[in-house]
Amino acid sequence: MVVGGDAAGMSAAATAKRRAGDALDVVVVERTGWTSYSACGIPYWVAGDVDGPGGLVARTPEQHREKGIDARVGIEAVSVDPAEQAVTVRPCDGGPEERLGYDHLLLATGAQPVRPDVPGADADGVHGIQTLDDGCRLLQTLESLDDSRPRRAVVVGGGYIGVEMAEVCLRRGLATTLVDLADEPMSTIDPDLATLVRTAMLDMGIDVVMGAGAEGFDTDDTGRVRAVRAGGRTYDADVVVLGLGVQPRSELAAAAGMPLGGSGGIRVEPSMTVPGPAGVWAAGDCVESWDRVAEEFVYVPLGTHANKQGRIAGLNIAGGRERFHGVVGTAITKVCDLEVARTGMAQDSAVAAGFDAVSATIKTTTRAGYFPGAQPMTVRLTAEKSGGRLLGGQIVGGEGSAIRIDICATALWAGLGVHDLVDLDLAYAPPFSSPWDPVQVAARALLSELH
Amino acid sequence: MVVGGDAAGMSAAATAKRRAGDALDVVVVERTGWTSYSACGIPYWVAGDVDGPGGLVARTPEQHREKGIDARVGIEAVSVDPAEQAVTVRPCDGGPEERLGYDHLLLATGAQPVRPDVPGADADGVHGIQTLDDGCRLLQTLESLDDSRPRRAVVVGGGYIGVEMAEVCLRRGLATTLVDLADEPMSTIDPDLATLVRTAMLDMGIDVVMGAGAEGFDTDDTGRVRAVRAGGRTYDADVVVLGLGVQPRSELAAAAGMPLGGSGGIRVEPSMTVPGPAGVWAAGDCVESWDRVAEEFVYVPLGTHANKQGRIAGLNIAGGRERFHGVVGTAITKVCDLEVARTGMAQDSAVAAGFDAVSATIKTTTRAGYFPGAQPMTVRLTAEKSGGRLLGGQIVGGEGSAIRIDICATALWAGLGVHDLVDLDLAYAPPFSSPWDPVQVAARALLSELH
Repeated sequence: MVVGGDAAGMSAAATAKRRAGDALDVVVVERTGWTSYSACGIPYWVAGDVDGPGGLVARTPEQHREKGIDARVGIEAVSVDPAEQAVTVRPCDGGPEERLGYDHLLLATGAQPVRPDVPGADADGVHGIQTLDDGCRLLQTLESLDDSRPRRAVVVGGGYIGVEMAEVCLRRGLATTLVDLADEPMSTIDPDLATLVRTAMLDMGIDVVMGAGAEGFDTDDTGRVRAVRAGGRTYDADVVVLGLGVQPRSELAAAAGMPLGGSGGIRVEPSMTVPGPAGVWAAGDCVESWDRVAEEFVYVPLGTHANKQGRIAGLNIAGGRERFHGVVGTAITKVCDLEVARTGMAQDSAVAAGFDAVSATIKTTTRAGYFPGAQPMTVRLTAEKSGGRLLGGQIVGGEGSAIRIDICATALWAGLGVHDLVDLDLAYAPPFSSPWDPVQVAARALLSELH
Repeated sequence: MVVGGDAAGMSAAATAKRRAGDALDVVVVERTGWTSYSACGIPYWVAGDVDGPGGLVARTPEQHREKGIDARVGIEAVSVDPAEQAVTVRPCDGGPEERLGYDHLLLATGAQPVRPDVPGADADGVHGIQTLDDGCRLLQTLESLDDSRPRRAVVVGGGYIGVEMAEVCLRRGLATTLVDLADEPMSTIDPDLATLVRTAMLDMGIDVVMGAGAEGFDTDDTGRVRAVRAGGRTYDADVVVLGLGVQPRSELAAAAGMPLGGSGGIRVEPSMTVPGPAGVWAAGDCVESWDRVAEEFVYVPLGTHANKQGRIAGLNIAGGRERFHGVVGTAITKVCDLEVARTGMAQDSAVAAGFDAVSATIKTTTRAGYFPGAQPMTVRLTAEKSGGRLLGGQIVGGEGSAIRIDICATALWAGLGVHDLVDLDLAYAPPFSSPWDPVQVAARALLSELH
């Protein structure tokens, strides 16, 4: 029995069914009408870059059923009874409840956008972006707008989704303002690098207002949002998009007495079992993950982890003995033509976590400097002062720069030191790089800092 | 005393001088007029993509002299007397010899293009591509050609330079034929992947003739090349480019009794010292390097290694205790719009070297499949059957595919297994990748093969 039919749930269902075959009946309940879709693709769909919502679906409920999985959409789980090993479900449109027994239960209930706890946050026209239905609703709002006057979007929060959605709104022709309580957007990178992101957004015409947390949403008499109050000012808004991040949907687990971490995410073993009740597993955006660098549980809701955790859960439900080995905090995005990536710990967060951290930052180009199309890029590496263990990397720059973060992510995974990064045998040809890869130029600068 | 003023020699000179300051007099002799240039950039200069030759120079002799290095160009070393710790040099234009004593001697004499041992191989119009002067000579030939009739280029050999130069000749408007004795070009990747490269060359209009080794070069009565005989046929040629690879310029070392490996490259310790004589070092394209995967000495003449080895030699000459930790055989290039990269051992070479190797090959796309601009890419990973240690990776595909080889290169460096690749926390967003990175999709396929 699987609750939740996106990346983690369906990876688990498909993997377990493929391994166990007829020995395992797999039932999936999913509250939306969609399974196995790319939530990360929603901004590109709303922008018009890709077809949606169907184009974002990797496998439909019908396709899962053809593989022997009993995928039931429009069904939500109401409660779990771990002692009796049963789940109560009901149709989202209000039909009768049903009680389903299980040998194994996988909770893959995902995440939901954070809504600020201020008046009007649930008004019509205030959109979170998490499911394909969220995307459909936002597109409905955008298409219903009166074209006869300038239209305005306000994005609340400057995380990954906020930054991506601000660009989408601008590209759809809306005058767009992004408000955020912090001093810079993208709190997972150091503020001076985040300045580059903010500058790129300003340059493309987005009004970026920092130090301005949402204080309330004004509505008209139909209940529709008309303005956002933030930082003591009022910003007119025909549509509002929330970019404050997401929080785990773990209410079902909590009500059944299962252990949650500080983020509200479900605590799981490396096998993806939930400690305590028999036969309960959890995976994806509703769980916390072990951070191999910080050595603590963290909440990192990403499709990559959801897919991997779902696969591990599925293999183990089918009798395997696999482990999810944790995360190092790798993330990447693109704002206009500026690419941004990070892995491990930023300098500020490393110091805040008590590490004796030192960083070096270099500015270089994405290709050999003399090569056409070479773009500026900035690389920061962070290491432990004593011993030089790599703690993290950040890259901000032009096309082709950000994917180099995977060198750092792989090195972090393997526990390499900064001196190892200098030694690596990385790919070089003028259209791709410089003889010293930008990551290695930063590693050399950091070695100098360490000595 | 440094012999050779390109990547290895000048990295060493600059590093040693920066570290040791006035305590060290650094003299560099370089037979050409150029120092610190990008040999890898020559094809792009000849193609007209970048300015040259000056644009390919990172630091001129004058700039080195401003940093306190006595850089003497147009001077060649004639002999080394290791017992007396002296080098005899002379101006390339025929001036008197001079004997220079040394405390430390760095041999950074580089490489020279392989010339086939057949009649006419030294004819006018037969060009190797290694130094900026080689580039100047090739451009002179190209510019001297009679524009009134179709012009023809024949490239002999389908290695990296051969494949790059065939594209350059075509783009300059020459009818271009590439001949090679092997069944496929690019012998460092497996033949079925090399087929993709050959097909891309054919598609762009290059006449690729495999199984045809050069048997001779026909000349006119001015001694200028007019045709290439290969595989029993004759190919008219106004210009010939050699793409048979390079061989170490180690005659100076050999004549002084220094140890050479099977490739003819100088054998060095990890410190970059030459075993035997006092105070002799060697680095760059004239030395063999330790292959961490194959665990044997190999000859891999690349600017990346030359820069690293030069830096290590320079640090150690200045009193450091650094080591060059070897290579894993990473290389990358671009043929038309097709990117090609490899690291470690290909399946065929691993089996030939006695490894019990198994490979898996997957076809995927460079971005999320639904994302605009997603291009096909093929990834092959190779591992040891017992234990699953990664042995190598190969990537052939569209824009953005090949640089992912650095994930494999970093993993190989760290000695990771295929199962580790599946676990890695790599960067994902739809414009960049898929939730399972292509390298991880291949790793999953290879895990299945292993089990």
